[in-house]
Amino acid sequence: MSTKFQQLLEKVYEIHDIEKAMGVLGWDKETNMPQAGNLARIQQMTTLRRISHELFTADEMGELIETAAAEIADAAYESNEASLIRYLRRSYAESRQLPPAFVRRVSEVSGKAQPAWVEARASNNFAHFQPHLEEVVKLVQEMAELYGYEDEKYDPLLDKFEHGMKTAEVRAIFNAVKAELIPLRQAITERGTAVDDSLVHQPFPIDKQKEFAYYIADAAGYDLSRGHLGTVVHPFATSFSRDDARITTRWYPNFLNPSLFGTLHESGHAMYEQGTHPDLARTPLARGTSSGIHESQSRMIENIVGRSLGFWQAHYPRLQAIFPDQLGSHGVQAFYRAINKVQPSFIRVEADELTYNFHIILRFELEQALLTGDLAVADLPTAWNDKMNELLGVVPPSDSDGCLQDVHWTRPGFGYFPTYALGNLYAAQFYETAVTQNPTIAEEMAQGQTGALVAWLRQNIHQHGRKFTPAELVQHITGGPLTHQPFMRYVTQKFSEIYEL
Amino acid sequence: MSTKFQQLLEKVYEIHDIEKAMGVLGWDKETNMPQAGNLARIQQMTTLRRISHELFTADEMGELIETAAAEIADAAYESNEASLIRYLRRSYAESRQLPPAFVRRVSEVSGKAQPAWVEARASNNFAHFQPHLEEVVKLVQEMAELYGYEDEKYDPLLDKFEHGMKTAEVRAIFNAVKAELIPLRQAITERGTAVDDSLVHQPFPIDKQKEFAYYIADAAGYDLSRGHLGTVVHPFATSFSRDDARITTRWYPNFLNPSLFGTLHESGHAMYEQGTHPDLARTPLARGTSSGIHESQSRMIENIVGRSLGFWQAHYPRLQAIFPDQLGSHGVQAFYRAINKVQPSFIRVEADELTYNFHIILRFELEQALLTGDLAVADLPTAWNDKMNELLGVVPPSDSDGCLQDVHWTRPGFGYFPTYALGNLYAAQFYETAVTQNPTIAEEMAQGQTGALVAWLRQNIHQHGRKFTPAELVQHITGGPLTHQPFMRYVTQKFSEIYEL
Repeated sequence: MSTKFQQLLEKVYEIHDIEKAMGVLGWDKETNMPQAGNLARIQQMTTLRRISHELFTADEMGELIETAAAEIADAAYESNEASLIRYLRRSYAESRQLPPAFVRRVSEVSGKAQPAWVEARASNNFAHFQPHLEEVVKLVQEMAELYGYEDEKYDPLLDKFEHGMKTAEVRAIFNAVKAELIPLRQAITERGTAVDDSLVHQPFPIDKQKEFAYYIADAAGYDLSRGHLGTVVHPFATSFSRDDARITTRWYPNFLNPSLFGTLHESGHAMYEQGTHPDLARTPLARGTSSGIHESQSRMIENIVGRSLGFWQAHYPRLQAIFPDQLGSHGVQAFYRAINKVQPSFIRVEADELTYNFHIILRFELEQALLTGDLAVADLPTAWNDKMNELLGVVPPSDSDGCLQDVHWTRPGFGYFPTYALGNLYAAQFYETAVTQNPTIAEEMAQGQTGALVAWLRQNIHQHGRKFTPAELVQHITGGPLTHQPFMRYVTQKFSEIYEL
Repeated sequence: MSTKFQQLLEKVYEIHDIEKAMGVLGWDKETNMPQAGNLARIQQMTTLRRISHELFTADEMGELIETAAAEIADAAYESNEASLIRYLRRSYAESRQLPPAFVRRVSEVSGKAQPAWVEARASNNFAHFQPHLEEVVKLVQEMAELYGYEDEKYDPLLDKFEHGMKTAEVRAIFNAVKAELIPLRQAITERGTAVDDSLVHQPFPIDKQKEFAYYIADAAGYDLSRGHLGTVVHPFATSFSRDDARITTRWYPNFLNPSLFGTLHESGHAMYEQGTHPDLARTPLARGTSSGIHESQSRMIENIVGRSLGFWQAHYPRLQAIFPDQLGSHGVQAFYRAINKVQPSFIRVEADELTYNFHIILRFELEQALLTGDLAVADLPTAWNDKMNELLGVVPPSDSDGCLQDVHWTRPGFGYFPTYALGNLYAAQFYETAVTQNPTIAEEMAQGQTGALVAWLRQNIHQHGRKFTPAELVQHITGGPLTHQPFMRYVTQKFSEIYEL
């Protein structure tokens, strides 16, 4: 390895260490820190962020990237070295596109918008949040101009979360999903109360839920010897290295699903980072490549694995043994149906596997309209309710259950929401390819085992970390671009069977 | 506030934030991190340490300290500004006294000595550790020269932990303690089995121990809303701000004392940092002033409060209610006697309140002999056993129970051990002054309440953080220097009563 490239690596390691330290501080903040410690913690994280930002955006860093790049100019495209240079060049350029004054404004606007949103949602008062959202919309509009774009204003925002993907592509795919998913949703709705999920709505002691969470995370393939399960209000996964990739869960005393599927969801995220190649350690490549691909891994484990019949045929007896009073008299079929109940609802985070996508498509469409100015912020509540009716056939009784439900728009992070639904589509497409390439995967899955699947994911996705763009990864794995068809085949077959359509 | 001093403060805040971030990483390492995450964590901590060290030892820092000092030259000695300058000048000078090559050697020697010690202790093979200890002794010898000294070689080492205190002073006090404590220990030993502590050696379910730990920490005065209780192998307290001062505890399934008194001990440490004045936040003054004074606060809560009859008259019923099978038939007097059983033993960390001091005096004397070369490392086992016999009247059956028991000598940290016993002496002296100044303290203590005591500690000790030296603090509070007499009065009265001497 060459001298300049080695120098660059040392710099990359240093910055990476600082960012992972920030990660630990952030994790501790959500899991263990007493609320009183918040001010000092924010100061500590701000200091680390400033140091890391200064190191990365320095002119010398740009020069070092280029001299190191020249040294390894002959390295193959898929080599770690060339991949790191690609990533650093892009990231370095981006880091200098937003002027410091703009970054400060983002902090100020978001800092005020967040508590205003909390109050607005609590009091169901959209007018209270409206001026803040108007500021946020102005920020994303300016941000799009600062980053620059060729086709659509939404492109550079989407690109931050799903590098290389264009708005037009997402729109075409989401339109295709809508066209097929709305009739399926309607057909299910017509079947009325065919599925009863009251069995998951019972008192479930939290210590027992925890005991099972460890069991099921392990069963799904999460390596607890290189992980940790913490308790939080808003679950997430995070990693400080491939050997310390953590998950978090919340516990509802009277509802089993949040801990069960939250644990599996975050396990899927953490397994991605546990599977990155050791050679990528201490570099920004040791992460999932995009928000959408990351979400494909969490959805794979939560839904394709975790809401499958085979998985529960294997693991439901254990769950029954832990909760004999609650589940002893309900068979695995009843449980399988309960955890797959489809029910159009108002709140995204409570939505089922099928209708979840409508919540995302709605936000994707509204974000674009707000960004271009086609939709005024003042008209958001009406537009929201109209789209809910179109896509889900229900209208929220209040803005708190409607356009005020998500924290996301307190920050100028337009472009993130679509990755939630893209994750579902990627997951189905990857899974279809996986079982075609290795029939053992389907055989094992029918027995509730994930070893072959996880090995396939590791080989084809995890190990590469952030070396390739989402499109490169999908093309390489499946031989084509992202398509909605595997997902539609998957949900159509699954829910036609459950709802006897 | 002046411009240069403000600039200095900004720098101090930055360095402080990085060091507290390291603290969080260290805390997480002991409490939550999977073992597999160790390599990456050490890299992260090393990077932060290097950044913090570079910032603090830079020439510009020295210049900034001096220009800021000149600006506030008129500030009163006890002002926060003048105290900060005093601390920074000393700390800056020290940080530049050890050449980088020496610091690296310390890391290398200790890195090898630690696993060698683990193996030597496990196999009771002193010869395996001997060459490493010889290297460590060489390091402390060189360190003493690098720091420089006027009177004794041990002085500059002791000074790192107990700033301003001289070896001769400690020696005189420890000799006085020995002269009075050995006869007391002998008188107790002659009483034989007057105290039965079998009641604390029973099965105590760990979740119940935890429940009581939260209760008793709160009862002692630890503010859990600005704290957190974690589980570890080797308990410690640490703070990331006065509003996030944490304790850790270990749980023995068949022995109540470690969780009970460990929790109280660490609570005392954490209460010190919780009590530092808010104006000292984000500066190195927001900590306990020395190892000995810090230990005085933990010993105050663990022993003077936590092993007192009044405390348990108030709180024992709660403990009985939690452990009715184990403690229901034992009265508070029996419990009080059990937790105050005096029993000469081999292992320091298991020693009782009285004999603990002998373990420390032994180490203090041996460290000096090793440092001066009067004692060769090869002769340590014999010297150890001789001193055990002299001070405690027992001889360990093996070096693993003798000179191999502590991890401390794997690092060149000579001078730290004596602060453990100094803490006991400070605590008794402070307490005697406190009850003289405010009789309510004793009245409350007889009822198991600590409000007035904690208020006194906060007012006289905690709020000052690291502004004053230990000697300044003791002089200011008690009107005289450290003396062993209050401690001797305290233990003589207490144990004469328990043992009916």
